[in-house]
Amino acid sequence: MDTTGTDPIEEKDTARTEAFSDAIFAFAITLLVLDLYVPKAGSPLTQALVNEWPSFFALFTSFLTVLIMWVNHHNMFHYIRRIDTRFMFLNGLLLLGVVLTPFTTSLVAEHVLLADAGLAAAIYSGTFLLLGLVWNVLWRYSSTGHRLLGANVTDEHVRTITRQYYVAPISYLSAFVVSFVSGLLSVCVVLVVAGFYAVTATMAT
Amino acid sequence: MDTTGTDPIEEKDTARTEAFSDAIFAFAITLLVLDLYVPKAGSPLTQALVNEWPSFFALFTSFLTVLIMWVNHHNMFHYIRRIDTRFMFLNGLLLLGVVLTPFTTSLVAEHVLLADAGLAAAIYSGTFLLLGLVWNVLWRYSSTGHRLLGANVTDEHVRTITRQYYVAPISYLSAFVVSFVSGLLSVCVVLVVAGFYAVTATMAT
Amino acid sequence: MDTTGTDPIEEKDTARTEAFSDAIFAFAITLLVLDLYVPKAGSPLTQALVNEWPSFFALFTSFLTVLIMWVNHHNMFHYIRRIDTRFMFLNGLLLLGVVLTPFTTSLVAEHVLLADAGLAAAIYSGTFLLLGLVWNVLWRYSSTGHRLLGANVTDEHVRTITRQYYVAPISYLSAFVVSFVSGLLSVCVVLVVAGFYAVTATMAT
Amino acid sequence: MDTTGTDPIEEKDTARTEAFSDAIFAFAITLLVLDLYVPKAGSPLTQALVNEWPSFFALFTSFLTVLIMWVNHHNMFHYIRRIDTRFMFLNGLLLLGVVLTPFTTSLVAEHVLLADAGLAAAIYSGTFLLLGLVWNVLWRYSSTGHRLLGANVTDEHVRTITRQYYVAPISYLSAFVVSFVSGLLSVCVVLVVAGFYAVTATMAT
Repeated sequence: MDTTGTDPIEEKDTARTEAFSDAIFAFAITLLVLDLYVPKAGSPLTQALVNEWPSFFALFTSFLTVLIMWVNHHNMFHYIRRIDTRFMFLNGLLLLGVVLTPFTTSLVAEHVLLADAGLAAAIYSGTFLLLGLVWNVLWRYSSTGHRLLGANVTDEHVRTITRQYYVAPISYLSAFVVSFVSGLLSVCVVLVVAGFYAVTATMAT
Repeated sequence: MDTTGTDPIEEKDTARTEAFSDAIFAFAITLLVLDLYVPKAGSPLTQALVNEWPSFFALFTSFLTVLIMWVNHHNMFHYIRRIDTRFMFLNGLLLLGVVLTPFTTSLVAEHVLLADAGLAAAIYSGTFLLLGLVWNVLWRYSSTGHRLLGANVTDEHVRTITRQYYVAPISYLSAFVVSFVSGLLSVCVVLVVAGFYAVTATMAT
Repeated sequence: MDTTGTDPIEEKDTARTEAFSDAIFAFAITLLVLDLYVPKAGSPLTQALVNEWPSFFALFTSFLTVLIMWVNHHNMFHYIRRIDTRFMFLNGLLLLGVVLTPFTTSLVAEHVLLADAGLAAAIYSGTFLLLGLVWNVLWRYSSTGHRLLGANVTDEHVRTITRQYYVAPISYLSAFVVSFVSGLLSVCVVLVVAGFYAVTATMAT
Repeated sequence: MDTTGTDPIEEKDTARTEAFSDAIFAFAITLLVLDLYVPKAGSPLTQALVNEWPSFFALFTSFLTVLIMWVNHHNMFHYIRRIDTRFMFLNGLLLLGVVLTPFTTSLVAEHVLLADAGLAAAIYSGTFLLLGLVWNVLWRYSSTGHRLLGANVTDEHVRTITRQYYVAPISYLSAFVVSFVSGLLSVCVVLVVAGFYAVTATMAT
């Protein structure tokens, strides 16, 4: 509070950016449920729900992926202690990708069993690939010369995070490439990547 | 703030996890309103709204149930003072169940008077049953060896909470079993459980 | 933080309840926009939008009413410094009314020019009437014997607030009664009440 | 906390107003995704998505515009340290404009290639124009006589902000005027304005 006193323009705390990002992550992840379709009366319910499996499959994959992004966003702010306008716009680009997730999820759910499954999966994994790249740009911008980092963050910390953040774009590039072979397989890659991350992150605790 | 200084990776505060969870609880509980259907012009309004009673009934049941979950989530963080990555993923699994609530509510509202009411109610109560089980896993993980608890939480506190948390899975298991007899009765069990909890919690204050 | 240390069960801070309520107010107020309908290609746009005036009218009325509720909820927490489980459930009942607003708004927008306008307006104003009554119960519960109030709140403060909170149920009772004469007039009463409140609150500042 | 103690009516902190506004900004920006339409099976997916470009174009324009508004709202609260009821209502008027954005975006996306594109774009840019004007009223109200500003905010700060806030209404007035020539061009002006702002704000950092 006092620190913003000297020059209110220059110094900005991270709290509201975190809250705004949290809200967008939370809404996007909750909006995924709108992709689920309640079968109307008349058709056998069991069969209708079983036929809807791509929607459940895509919802679960996207939920886990966005949850992991949120966990990482949360963790990144243990290092970042200041933000500036550039950071807010790069973070905004990240949030654009998050906001698009309910759409790409719905797209892949509706088309993963059709002839154009590859294109749908390419858009799905491609959006995550772009997200992974923006994430790396955001981190590079924040960490170069310790620009926005806390005083107690060491170079070793920075190198560890930088290495970890390479994983996402490489993984989603794989999923993107696989989409040209099989749309369904591409979504499976996204799910396996998320599952692998969740398990290793959990083991490392 | 200073405490995160020594090692930014290890120590994580609970504030953002609470805020993220709050947003998802709040959003899911608000999305329930989308299940309500505004009767179109032409049909008699009174009759149309009366015919819609399963939607109002399911909305109220889910609203109260999710509200109670939020109250419990809120209360749980009076004991939990630290979080780790495993906690975030278990909590994420909990939130997946919360996110699914508008779907399962809509499902049960549309089918509770049809021949497949039992299946719809089984999915509805089954999701709450899984939520109750995940909740117990989350609490066991947090409380074992006081892993994530505040220093002032006593063993007696832990035992009391542990006992309280058994109630949810047992109650929802009953509702789940009842769904094989009658879908409508199963939803009534969920409502009675929530109402009973609300009354006793209120009395105990 | 230290205060919750002595007995984590008994003492609860208000921050998360305020945040949860804020989120529900914010979502419900934003969901109102889903009632607006984008005219499809083919029909003349001007005419189509003009014909949609009941939706804009109802949206504006509900937006202002919910905004005022939020302002009052915000102000109430300048007095309330503690919460208990009963408060959380009464507050939850309040939030149920807020969550229903997008539905009642849509209902009144679609039916205000039809033969059943009175019923739609009765449901619309009746929900606000119930909200106003719950609000008074909540305040009575919180203020009786200074149960949940801050130490510095005087009896004079309490009496002033108590008097102010009578206005809402009386106003909405008027709107409810008027709905049996004219649905449109009833919605106008709700709008006038909100406008009158906004102007006087603003003047008093 | 202590400061609100002397007179709970007079003094109000800004935290909850910021949180409430954040939630509405975040929710409105996320609801933009509902304007995107998942092509149904049967039609060629590539063609269907290409034909949907106005929706992507409008979504991106609105996302960037609302993001910039949020950044400015965030920055404004580095100066504003107190709020009163008038501020809350003016801020509410601002939020009404934000809430309408998913509707105006959808309107312009559906009509920008049709004969009535001009009207749709006039409503789209006109809403932003009104938002820009309310913003200036809000700032004037807050800054006149340093009414709601922090003690350390200088007259020079105020003049700088006041000048900056003129840009929005002038820009959106241009977009509004252009809408009478070409609807598509008007949306392009809104996008260019946002892009220009983002680039200059980023350069100035």
